[in-house]
Amino acid sequence: MRDIGFIGLGIMGRPMAERLLGAGYAVTVFNRTPQKAEPLLARGAHWADSPEAVARRSELLITMVSDSDALQDVARGPQGVLRGIRPRAIHVDMSTVAPHTVEDLERTYRERGAVFLHAPVLGNWRHAAEGTLLIFVGGDRQAYETCEPVLRTLGQKIWYFERITRATHMKLIANSFIASMILTLAQAFVFGRRVGITPTRLLEILDASALNAPMYQSKGRTMCERDFRPNFYARHMLKDVDLLLEAARCANVPLPVFGVIRELFVATTARGFGEEDYSAVLKVMEEMAGLAPEDGAS
Amino acid sequence: MRDIGFIGLGIMGRPMAERLLGAGYAVTVFNRTPQKAEPLLARGAHWADSPEAVARRSELLITMVSDSDALQDVARGPQGVLRGIRPRAIHVDMSTVAPHTVEDLERTYRERGAVFLHAPVLGNWRHAAEGTLLIFVGGDRQAYETCEPVLRTLGQKIWYFERITRATHMKLIANSFIASMILTLAQAFVFGRRVGITPTRLLEILDASALNAPMYQSKGRTMCERDFRPNFYARHMLKDVDLLLEAARCANVPLPVFGVIRELFVATTARGFGEEDYSAVLKVMEEMAGLAPEDGAS
Amino acid sequence: MRDIGFIGLGIMGRPMAERLLGAGYAVTVFNRTPQKAEPLLARGAHWADSPEAVARRSELLITMVSDSDALQDVARGPQGVLRGIRPRAIHVDMSTVAPHTVEDLERTYRERGAVFLHAPVLGNWRHAAEGTLLIFVGGDRQAYETCEPVLRTLGQKIWYFERITRATHMKLIANSFIASMILTLAQAFVFGRRVGITPTRLLEILDASALNAPMYQSKGRTMCERDFRPNFYARHMLKDVDLLLEAARCANVPLPVFGVIRELFVATTARGFGEEDYSAVLKVMEEMAGLAPEDGAS
Amino acid sequence: MRDIGFIGLGIMGRPMAERLLGAGYAVTVFNRTPQKAEPLLARGAHWADSPEAVARRSELLITMVSDSDALQDVARGPQGVLRGIRPRAIHVDMSTVAPHTVEDLERTYRERGAVFLHAPVLGNWRHAAEGTLLIFVGGDRQAYETCEPVLRTLGQKIWYFERITRATHMKLIANSFIASMILTLAQAFVFGRRVGITPTRLLEILDASALNAPMYQSKGRTMCERDFRPNFYARHMLKDVDLLLEAARCANVPLPVFGVIRELFVATTARGFGEEDYSAVLKVMEEMAGLAPEDGAS
Repeated sequence: MRDIGFIGLGIMGRPMAERLLGAGYAVTVFNRTPQKAEPLLARGAHWADSPEAVARRSELLITMVSDSDALQDVARGPQGVLRGIRPRAIHVDMSTVAPHTVEDLERTYRERGAVFLHAPVLGNWRHAAEGTLLIFVGGDRQAYETCEPVLRTLGQKIWYFERITRATHMKLIANSFIASMILTLAQAFVFGRRVGITPTRLLEILDASALNAPMYQSKGRTMCERDFRPNFYARHMLKDVDLLLEAARCANVPLPVFGVIRELFVATTARGFGEEDYSAVLKVMEEMAGLAPEDGAS
Repeated sequence: MRDIGFIGLGIMGRPMAERLLGAGYAVTVFNRTPQKAEPLLARGAHWADSPEAVARRSELLITMVSDSDALQDVARGPQGVLRGIRPRAIHVDMSTVAPHTVEDLERTYRERGAVFLHAPVLGNWRHAAEGTLLIFVGGDRQAYETCEPVLRTLGQKIWYFERITRATHMKLIANSFIASMILTLAQAFVFGRRVGITPTRLLEILDASALNAPMYQSKGRTMCERDFRPNFYARHMLKDVDLLLEAARCANVPLPVFGVIRELFVATTARGFGEEDYSAVLKVMEEMAGLAPEDGAS
Repeated sequence: MRDIGFIGLGIMGRPMAERLLGAGYAVTVFNRTPQKAEPLLARGAHWADSPEAVARRSELLITMVSDSDALQDVARGPQGVLRGIRPRAIHVDMSTVAPHTVEDLERTYRERGAVFLHAPVLGNWRHAAEGTLLIFVGGDRQAYETCEPVLRTLGQKIWYFERITRATHMKLIANSFIASMILTLAQAFVFGRRVGITPTRLLEILDASALNAPMYQSKGRTMCERDFRPNFYARHMLKDVDLLLEAARCANVPLPVFGVIRELFVATTARGFGEEDYSAVLKVMEEMAGLAPEDGAS
Repeated sequence: MRDIGFIGLGIMGRPMAERLLGAGYAVTVFNRTPQKAEPLLARGAHWADSPEAVARRSELLITMVSDSDALQDVARGPQGVLRGIRPRAIHVDMSTVAPHTVEDLERTYRERGAVFLHAPVLGNWRHAAEGTLLIFVGGDRQAYETCEPVLRTLGQKIWYFERITRATHMKLIANSFIASMILTLAQAFVFGRRVGITPTRLLEILDASALNAPMYQSKGRTMCERDFRPNFYARHMLKDVDLLLEAARCANVPLPVFGVIRELFVATTARGFGEEDYSAVLKVMEEMAGLAPEDGAS
């Protein structure tokens, strides 16, 4: 397995494609905004004019796109992957999308004699660049084994699930921790500042406790610095909480706490912070408390 | 400082008093249910018949009681500490109580020529036994420095705040993390089991991620084993979330997520699990989902 | 305008079609389960074998189906309305569906030289039978004026909106009142019963106050009698709250209270009450409180 | 029963005392801010210098104060009612206070040979002026019958409960409807305006439906006019939701929806609207949606 296609060169996709190039694979890329492909072409990647064209040249095809609709377009569009996919080729989508979308695609690909796997990841662009993503893979076992070496280039830790939607669900659950933890942190920051406990002190104490998670420290620091440049867009977090609630509804699981969390991310995008990092939910909490950004922040 | 009084010999208080004995202090104890003092008396502690009597014999007095009312009783009751406290003696309460309670007591003690400090702790009875509690101390600096060696017997990590209520607030914030994290975990367990992801698998994945906290692993394991014996009572967690929301209201901080979390702990006690561990909130989430305890649990 | 098609003969659709027959219109019907059409055929309605066949015979076509997917099927399916619709014919959908669904259909029908209107209703089957539904109509004004006499057979009170989605949104807002009010009532019943205030007494007091709404009395009575036979399915209420939250998200409006309400309807269906009336959410509130149905209910 | 004392001459208390004067009772008044008594003195009321002094002159004593602490002060303070109350005199508190406060006072008064009744009311200052308040009375039946004619001057509709706290709880439940309904309305206004449905249109439709309550219309109109002058302070609504949640917790009743509603009223006071009408919660909802007050408001 040498010829790999890669579609979707955003914050995550680009460093992932770079790692594959670095590992010696022949990589053909496509992106809706072609300019984003340039650094990869400079490093030896090939360009193709459509998902269909990428598919024609690839044994293994990887996609990293923003949501279920984008994935459906890439797969089923007029110049989509399904028009060009080779027999027995494998399409591994690594985006966070809806469980029913991956189920549909798995069925369609099987009917065409190809394979669709879902392999969503946990981690940010730094992990992507370092090949330390956590990967949840779901779908046909043999296909997974075939492409496992490629996936190991992107992340050493891989969990495999026979049923494709388990990987999808696992990713939604992982993101539920992120969403809930950022809100716990944001609410603690706002309350702490109002009563005279600085965020820095709070992080130091958290760090010494059994409650600490590396994410609290890394996000906590950028929030202290009011650095809301996106590692993961607030609007994507909203999308993922939506997918979570929708999937939980289908599974007959009420998630009352996330019902509120969702609305706070709706507020985050409503207030114009959708293109910032999801930790910008802090600003919504501050506004609700009537707290100026600088009050008690040092 | 050799003569220490200790009032409140519950899950936490008893191992704390034992450590003080082990460190060579002369400890006089009192507890509403006297039998609970017996193991300590066997190890050399002295018994006194009331908080007042304990106070008469002590340079430093430590209390570890269940809530603000209990503390007020111990301090202001007809045979309370304030009737017997020596000039310049120090009363360190280590319970989780309301900010306005500690402010009131600080003022009253000062008027009597004594000192009241608040030093709530983070950790369970195991940490108490090992002397590895985290301690937040608030109040008069000189008094704190006087009793610091004693406090270091109970926990090496100590954060000192000049203003007494900051220690109180810090503890409430720490507990807000516990409350929120247990609900995130409980909701993940219920959803995971419904879609075929076992709690064990979920913990393993969490452990490999930047989201992991030691608490997720320790609580997750006992929840897997359905061991709800109390490390920390569900009804105490409800009390602490109540204190948090009340303190946040006074500080003009809305905490919408905790508004829902509180009601789920109300449900936990309403369903009869108040005397179990706070992780029994899992059972409420299961019931709301119509999920039997054994479904997908292995 | 004499020849009317009617598709969807459920709780609401059947009495609506009956009124049209009673008013002297020639009505052609279709329903996925044909038996449900029998009483109407006995009263003079004609049967057609598909939405397409209904469309061929109708100047005006009315649909009353369960959700957006069902409407898309009826309209765009292999034997759907769009295959048979006459030039300049009007399709009025009266179901509660998603705003983007009605926008899509409006566009498609216009391209085919026909008209799609959305006219969701407020009221139950009794109002349908009596012709007293409240109707919100959105879409082409001329088409609305053409079919207005037919709509007045179903409900005298009609509000017309030029923009099609306004009718859709208005219906979702109306349902938001229903959802929120039933939960207010359910929570009041449970709390009241626990403290010795019977539901009957509570309704009597409410009736005398400025807070009263006819709906509180009608629903309150059936809840007192524990009559949860569906006037409006709990699972449909869940669907409508979902549509509301989705539409509000698209409009950048956070609805934190409904975020929680949604999860309580998820619990209602998760507990197996989805096919009961939406007031069965009372049973979820009772269970969370550990309250037996008969406690303090008289 | 001719000599009536009246303590607490705020928005509600003053018009109530005026009605008693108008009905020919001899009324002795006290208020912390004495100027507020002037219009009453001009109409023939007598002034007394303390609650104690009022009590000495009264067979029946009525209080209308802001919260539980204020009531405790009036009753138990150094110049409180209990110092001056006559044997067999009746103190009727008509404020909204905590259930345990009225239970405590009932006991204390009984021990002194007097009677304490709780008679909270539903209605605003207009109803007070017109004598059309709704009154919930709890406590000793004979005492109630004695003072019933006086209460009928204030409100024709009276519900009597043998157990004193039932009246208290009934009032909290009534306010739960107000709190929940105002938020339903506020959220509908914000969403409606974003999608092009004016508040005026929305109220008109509501008015025609079974969902309508007089309160929706009266509050809806003032919200349309952005008239947030207090009929009922936002900070008092927050207090009442707090009392509700506290009472429900004691009764083992989780109220998840009100858990969120509370935090939105915390936000209302945090944003500086505590002294405005409780309908100012609309402004919080607008801010969370990033909606300017004038957008789509006409």
